Amino acid sequence: MTALKRLRKPKSDKAIASSNQLLEAASTILAGRHSIDVSFTEIADASGLNAALIKYYFGSKDGLLLALVRRDATAALKQLNYLVSLDIPPDEKIRLHIAGVIKTYIKYPYLNSLIHALLGNEDEKIPHELSDFFVRPLVDAQTKILDEGVALGAFRRINPTFFYYSVIGACDHFFFGRISRKFAFGIGDVTPNVRDEYINFVCDMTLRLLRTE
Amino acid sequence: MTALKRLRKPKSDKAIASSNQLLEAASTILAGRHSIDVSFTEIADASGLNAALIKYYFGSKDGLLLALVRRDATAALKQLNYLVSLDIPPDEKIRLHIAGVIKTYIKYPYLNSLIHALLGNEDEKIPHELSDFFVRPLVDAQTKILDEGVALGAFRRINPTFFYYSVIGACDHFFFGRISRKFAFGIGDVTPNVRDEYINFVCDMTLRLLRTE
Repeated sequence: MTALKRLRKPKSDKAIASSNQLLEAASTILAGRHSIDVSFTEIADASGLNAALIKYYFGSKDGLLLALVRRDATAALKQLNYLVSLDIPPDEKIRLHIAGVIKTYIKYPYLNSLIHALLGNEDEKIPHELSDFFVRPLVDAQTKILDEGVALGAFRRINPTFFYYSVIGACDHFFFGRISRKFAFGIGDVTPNVRDEYINFVCDMTLRLLRTE
Repeated sequence: MTALKRLRKPKSDKAIASSNQLLEAASTILAGRHSIDVSFTEIADASGLNAALIKYYFGSKDGLLLALVRRDATAALKQLNYLVSLDIPPDEKIRLHIAGVIKTYIKYPYLNSLIHALLGNEDEKIPHELSDFFVRPLVDAQTKILDEGVALGAFRRINPTFFYYSVIGACDHFFFGRISRKFAFGIGDVTPNVRDEYINFVCDMTLRLLRTE
């Protein structure tokens, strides 16, 4: 039985609205701080709802955080799957995919810390679910783009698992340790200019990786 | 005043031996678990020393964890600086550097989670120090290799900060979320074979990134 199956599913419109309200409150709080430490009381206060509802709807704080990643990741995966279906060259799909990943990290500044924390959760059900609703669909979509590129003779064949780790790792690491980035490199907030430069850098690296000789 | 300056420096041989003993105990405990949660009591029990000594030598648990990263990272940085000084082609230095990073993550399986947690610490002094003793020296060494390659006409000039984030990110991400790696890709322990395949993959990606047209 998975952690999400254990949750009581919101049934009424009011219940759905309440659980969305709790997620939105957690999202707003986390977007404003550098760590992902957030308490039931803070979420309850910010949402105007009772802290007991968090337990009722999400089972635990990790359940709520997992639901938050699911909410944000679902939107990003929907875009990615749309992109995969487009009739455009595979290298253009790679560019749009990488730009999408980096923009998602900027839009939800807590997302990568949260994913890291949940992937490292001692309760194996949590990383298991995250893999099911996020990691696998992401890799499946990437693999479709890679296969298409190979079929068209535009890309050489490479290991899709290694592709996932290296490309997502490159995108992810830039958004990790904001404070260190500021101290070590003088890059505080990622301005649109820095963002676009890094998108270009990672796209260039990735397309060079895929290029047939 | 930095966090480390605040610490009482071990003065006697006995004090140095005791603080090393506490670090070794923390290292052994963390190497055996998936998270970086470890208590004063556990470290004290495993070291055979009094828990109060942790506070005495390291100021706090974060101080001890920072000292552990310093211990492990110092060994890795020493190797890297030796490598930089060698009279071998720059692409060979890149290969040895990437193999060194990946092997360091395998040798100290807690190191990347620990670095991530400390870089995201709310107390800015911690990420600041980590940047000083780890991130900056690492980037400086990488930049020397890149500059040498450019001077020899072997590499094109690229942004060294972006190089750091993308290459270290690619190495790092593979060792993050071991449980997810197992669920999503069926890769549990990183066997020597998988390790070498991933080293080759990242080296190939990096040398393609650096190659002049």
